Amino acid sequence: MTDRYQQFARSGFGRLVVRRLGLPNPTPLRRYRPGEPALEGPAVFGSADGGRLDAVPAILRSAGIEVLTEPAQDRHAALVFDATGIDDVARLREVYDFFHPLIRTVGPCGRVVVLGSTLDGLDPRAAVVQRALEGFTRSVGKELRRGATVQLVQVAPGAEAAVESTLRFLLSARSAYVDAQVIRVGTHSTSTAEPEDWERPLTGRVALVTGAARGIGAAIAEVLARDGAHVVALDIPAQGDELSAVANRISGTALQLDITSSDAPAQLVEHLVERHDGVDIVVHNAGITRDKTLGKMTDAAWDAVLSVNLASQLAANDALLEADALNAGGRIIGVSSIAGIAGNVGQTNYATSKAGVIGMVSTFAPVLAERGATINAVAPGFIETRMTAAVPLFVREAGRRMNSMSQGGQPMDVAETIAWLASPGSGAVNGNVVRVCGQSLLGA
Amino acid sequence: MTDRYQQFARSGFGRLVVRRLGLPNPTPLRRYRPGEPALEGPAVFGSADGGRLDAVPAILRSAGIEVLTEPAQDRHAALVFDATGIDDVARLREVYDFFHPLIRTVGPCGRVVVLGSTLDGLDPRAAVVQRALEGFTRSVGKELRRGATVQLVQVAPGAEAAVESTLRFLLSARSAYVDAQVIRVGTHSTSTAEPEDWERPLTGRVALVTGAARGIGAAIAEVLARDGAHVVALDIPAQGDELSAVANRISGTALQLDITSSDAPAQLVEHLVERHDGVDIVVHNAGITRDKTLGKMTDAAWDAVLSVNLASQLAANDALLEADALNAGGRIIGVSSIAGIAGNVGQTNYATSKAGVIGMVSTFAPVLAERGATINAVAPGFIETRMTAAVPLFVREAGRRMNSMSQGGQPMDVAETIAWLASPGSGAVNGNVVRVCGQSLLGA
Repeated sequence: MTDRYQQFARSGFGRLVVRRLGLPNPTPLRRYRPGEPALEGPAVFGSADGGRLDAVPAILRSAGIEVLTEPAQDRHAALVFDATGIDDVARLREVYDFFHPLIRTVGPCGRVVVLGSTLDGLDPRAAVVQRALEGFTRSVGKELRRGATVQLVQVAPGAEAAVESTLRFLLSARSAYVDAQVIRVGTHSTSTAEPEDWERPLTGRVALVTGAARGIGAAIAEVLARDGAHVVALDIPAQGDELSAVANRISGTALQLDITSSDAPAQLVEHLVERHDGVDIVVHNAGITRDKTLGKMTDAAWDAVLSVNLASQLAANDALLEADALNAGGRIIGVSSIAGIAGNVGQTNYATSKAGVIGMVSTFAPVLAERGATINAVAPGFIETRMTAAVPLFVREAGRRMNSMSQGGQPMDVAETIAWLASPGSGAVNGNVVRVCGQSLLGA
Repeated sequence: MTDRYQQFARSGFGRLVVRRLGLPNPTPLRRYRPGEPALEGPAVFGSADGGRLDAVPAILRSAGIEVLTEPAQDRHAALVFDATGIDDVARLREVYDFFHPLIRTVGPCGRVVVLGSTLDGLDPRAAVVQRALEGFTRSVGKELRRGATVQLVQVAPGAEAAVESTLRFLLSARSAYVDAQVIRVGTHSTSTAEPEDWERPLTGRVALVTGAARGIGAAIAEVLARDGAHVVALDIPAQGDELSAVANRISGTALQLDITSSDAPAQLVEHLVERHDGVDIVVHNAGITRDKTLGKMTDAAWDAVLSVNLASQLAANDALLEADALNAGGRIIGVSSIAGIAGNVGQTNYATSKAGVIGMVSTFAPVLAERGATINAVAPGFIETRMTAAVPLFVREAGRRMNSMSQGGQPMDVAETIAWLASPGSGAVNGNVVRVCGQSLLGA
């Protein structure tokens, strides 16, 4: 779980060099292992007057977290503050009052969660200050050290009971590389179904994962299977051997299919309906790059990237919805990218496709909500894969360090985030694009 | 207009060092001077089938720009493409087809504008691809060199006739440091009033500028006055001498007032109504920093920043609207910051206030639209001022170079952007937050 630089920085000699030169010294991130407690210590819960989320302490306790309403020690594993009641600029002071004395007690890989409100329908002054919390949390993210994270969760009025899956994710090691995100709960729907077993929430579900033969796709397949899903692992025929290996390892099904072929959507539907009685979770992970600056890019490179990364996903969604092959409570999850948010040199095609995935999420969220389903996306930052290992050293090191964690993420970090979105408990999480980037400096 | 590094990089020895070490070699940006042509050469206009913006060539010509519909030379000052007709992923290829052969013909300080559609009410597939254009333009911004910029202008259906002020701004030297922005035209209103004289569009208008004694505020006052406005330059009494100097230079009015005092809104209204018969343009520029990490920040530092940068602006707006002191066609313009978008170490208070300004814009845009007025904000990146000159060398150089222009902006770049938003021609530009940051890498 540590890269070579991290190993060096933790060696005797490396420690000296790192300290003298002021180089980054990344903390190995704590990651989820079944059976381990969510947090390595107690959480402090606080609340501004008029807050709507007084059920949160009970939710945290049900997740096995010790909750203090008065800070009792000089180190805490999490700080959670209900700011939904704040409706005026002067009252933002309550956020300061809670965090100022406590922020330095946050332990390694600790968690900070600010609970705010979605803005729609709020009194104008309240809407302004709820929006202001975003600047607060992003700054806290850049100040926190040693692998600790912060998020702003905006809870829609009426969705108070629907935050459990999100809090369990954010207040655990599953969200290791998710930092400084704004997550909206209950914008399109507040309905949610509590999993019978939070350790295996996907039991009985069928999940399709495209591009599953290796890298992030393989990690997604493994994590969804670990959480109980039967995984249909899809990739192109040329990846057949690796695909079979993944499918065998997780007792899933391998499906060789080129998703860009004209009959792929029909074949996909046929497989899912006839073999599995429909699908519960669709993860559009398959993606390619064909990098060149625009003046040097071939039309084939443009078309290939747009076709794999965007057109095929839209076609598959259409076919699944039309055939009613997405089961009730279905989940569609796209994989965007920081390049789709910030743009990137040599990636006009890739960034266009990945921005399109963001468009897909916001456009189809209300459509899916009508069916009791959801659509969301993750946007990975620098993730350690064979693809990023091939990037030239200097660019790779810059990408790896230019975030609040001073390190790249692991494929499983993306996979855990997808598993949260896929959970039956996440029915109120719809239309979100969540970056898995350790709060990369890059953005728009 | 060039910084010391730029001067060095252009010297004989500096040129050698820069080339050998691969250091940035920023192009001096062309900036607006009254009387000079908008562009230093012709613009190429192209269009995807079904585009709504066929009036654009005529608009450009009326701004004195030579428009080619077939590229005729190996260097063009601007490329403008109407992508509003693109409604399918496969058709995004038309964007590639237009730009691929032309992008390398864009000259120094050239301009690229992609005209797209706002997403509301579009057919879902069209909405996805219109959103995808954002990834395209941000990547092009990172590929363009030598001071050239790119923007995506999303034009709402029915607002086709309202784009002139925006195109004139973007296709001129006035927008020197605005890069890779997405600007929405016609989201709240499509009404607009063409200025009698585009060189002095603010003639007869009264503009209030807070924090006008120096830096960006003084530049705003000067540019608004240059464009014809009578400027009420406001600052705290302690800045009285500098404020008077600014006001005298531009034949404006100096108003000494502490905007955080409880009677400030009433005094402001009284001054504007009794002395000027109301106000047309309000620029909330006054802002302070009191930087400390959250654990070390005093409550006084928190309160002072929130009070000056956010609460006082809301209070002033309320008072102006209640007293009907904002004239018909009024403009409110806030000053946010990249820190309000991305967060910053040591600036939890400042980033909260500046994110609140973004909240103010989106919350009050529909309210202002009902009165035929608008509210927008600029979000400056690294701007060369006395404030940034005081930043430690290494941090300053990083901030200055980490953008697509490899240089900091000038106060006038922020001022020109505000002047565009203030123009009577910009009535359809409402609810926007426009970064003036040379496409800073930083974001969220």
